[in-house]
Amino acid sequence: MDVTNILHMNGGIGKCSYANNSILQHIREEAIIRVYNSIHPRCLSIAELGCSSGPNAFIVVSEIIKIVENLCKEMNHKSPEYKVFMNDLPENDFNNIFKSSSTFEEKLSNEMKSQIGPCYFYAAPTSFYGRIFPNQTLHFIHSSSSLHWLSKVPEGIEKNKGNIYISNTSPLNVLKAYYEQFQKDFSLFLKCRAEELVEQGQMFLTLLGRRSEHQSTKECCYIWELMAKALNDMVLEGKIKEKEIDTFNIPYYTPSPSEVKLEVLKEGSFTINLLEVSEVNLNAYDTWNTLEYESQSCESFNDGAYNVAQCIRAGTEPLLVSHFGEAIIEEVFSRYQEILNDHMSNEKIVFIYVTILLTRK
Amino acid sequence: MDVTNILHMNGGIGKCSYANNSILQHIREEAIIRVYNSIHPRCLSIAELGCSSGPNAFIVVSEIIKIVENLCKEMNHKSPEYKVFMNDLPENDFNNIFKSSSTFEEKLSNEMKSQIGPCYFYAAPTSFYGRIFPNQTLHFIHSSSSLHWLSKVPEGIEKNKGNIYISNTSPLNVLKAYYEQFQKDFSLFLKCRAEELVEQGQMFLTLLGRRSEHQSTKECCYIWELMAKALNDMVLEGKIKEKEIDTFNIPYYTPSPSEVKLEVLKEGSFTINLLEVSEVNLNAYDTWNTLEYESQSCESFNDGAYNVAQCIRAGTEPLLVSHFGEAIIEEVFSRYQEILNDHMSNEKIVFIYVTILLTRK
Repeated sequence: MDVTNILHMNGGIGKCSYANNSILQHIREEAIIRVYNSIHPRCLSIAELGCSSGPNAFIVVSEIIKIVENLCKEMNHKSPEYKVFMNDLPENDFNNIFKSSSTFEEKLSNEMKSQIGPCYFYAAPTSFYGRIFPNQTLHFIHSSSSLHWLSKVPEGIEKNKGNIYISNTSPLNVLKAYYEQFQKDFSLFLKCRAEELVEQGQMFLTLLGRRSEHQSTKECCYIWELMAKALNDMVLEGKIKEKEIDTFNIPYYTPSPSEVKLEVLKEGSFTINLLEVSEVNLNAYDTWNTLEYESQSCESFNDGAYNVAQCIRAGTEPLLVSHFGEAIIEEVFSRYQEILNDHMSNEKIVFIYVTILLTRK
Repeated sequence: MDVTNILHMNGGIGKCSYANNSILQHIREEAIIRVYNSIHPRCLSIAELGCSSGPNAFIVVSEIIKIVENLCKEMNHKSPEYKVFMNDLPENDFNNIFKSSSTFEEKLSNEMKSQIGPCYFYAAPTSFYGRIFPNQTLHFIHSSSSLHWLSKVPEGIEKNKGNIYISNTSPLNVLKAYYEQFQKDFSLFLKCRAEELVEQGQMFLTLLGRRSEHQSTKECCYIWELMAKALNDMVLEGKIKEKEIDTFNIPYYTPSPSEVKLEVLKEGSFTINLLEVSEVNLNAYDTWNTLEYESQSCESFNDGAYNVAQCIRAGTEPLLVSHFGEAIIEEVFSRYQEILNDHMSNEKIVFIYVTILLTRK
């Protein structure tokens, strides 16, 4: 199954953003300072890959522009122009994004209490597993919470019975097929971006991953095991056919840091400035603050199970609808939320993120 | 009234395209050859302004790319990369456009029987009465059938009673207000584009206009007089309030060639390579061929009144709905088509186009 046509986030404002995390902000700040100081571009080209349809994309972009504007003030430079490309699959709800772009420059100038450089926004509706931009035209590439989505469901995983992702009951060939698809996709991604970035350009990627070297480790698989449980329960009640689950697998992979690193080294165009793993505890509102998560942008994180279900729904609803049909979706997510709730009363649920900052050699 | 938020073409495939006209094709061909030969860009930047949501935008873009590819073959040059920006107001149905962009390169390569240079497509959702692109980054700007739309309804035209555009019963201040709004908008358009084009860049514009120097000449006004008649008839039947028509005016202006020329000369950044007027007879299918209109792309032009009504509907429905509400729209256009039908049995109906080709000095 090729997922280019169905793998898009639900429209509207997503609730689970990881982009605002302040540790990541600090890393991005260093990266953008490095780009500006090494290149001094008259027009800074920024790409947000896998931007989805929410306003989070603009949060990162305004952060980047603020950093550059402050640098220009310090150095008494004229502000550059800013070219900002918002990328996602063609089925993404781009209309929603551009509602906020027309007032962006004015709002940011007001916030900064001085006129910022002119900002031009474009949509780039195509898969990031392929070229999006001409040769050597970008200065800064950013992607948050997107690269764990594969370009397609791996081939040869028919024997993953009862599961919808890697699980501890998955046969070895399933683990192998998922890893190979990740390697293929991620190395293509790196190759394309290497061609698009200027020398000394920076790329900041954060994606769902895992700490452990074991692919079927609980930390990255239980989310899908619980979803599979909801679906299998509906099979038992005759609401879904068993065959339908057997042919459904999520085009998703959560790599370990060393798996990410290996692809970067094999591709060879980038220097690794930073590679780190972080953890977000999803159990309750207050624990989001362990990573200094900005609470003002995370309303309604008081119900862990609800929030996790919403997160997963935002990323998977189009996939599920395309495979199982519209009719069962509400029930799937309501059951999923219940199962999550049970689970979370005994155990904490975490998302593991792998973050990597790369410089184009 | 600011029309940025409501002035967009209806989604889907429009039926009245003027872009395929073969005389215009020839003019465009010369322009693109001039750009390529004077600049030899490694990456050719093309903008289609007011692209609407139909596939017409891609017809012009593929024509441009074919010309460049043929030039490269002749001169034994490597194909350039192509950066194509599709611009329209943010409310435009961009999703519809990008359905065809993913297979564009492959299709065109097949048609040309050789691999063309890589094509990158972007949406630029903003008004063209403002900057869209950074300084000096475009090689070729194209706009077809869009620039007769003003940025807003002119101010001070309250006394245009019973009319919805300039008519021979309009007071002089209405004519003056419309012309001043055109001057303001078109000169701003030229100023912005002059900043965005590289030296020797080309701009090809075609818009609805008029031959006569008289603003209230029938050739450009009767389309709206007939629409006003449909609306006024509905006032008589109590279906629309009189006050509603008195406060409705179309943000539209059909300039004469000399009015277009005057603004270009005043702005001063462009050399005029060509300025011409052409006429499309809309009465019946076969007369479209008088201008060698490509018949294969104009199915169903056998009913003149239907086609004119559809054309006007595509451009004005969002405006009418926003002012009069959704409920009356079907009736307005059904009455309009009837009135057009009566009219066209006695008189031919023509659209006058003004075409101008400019080189950035």
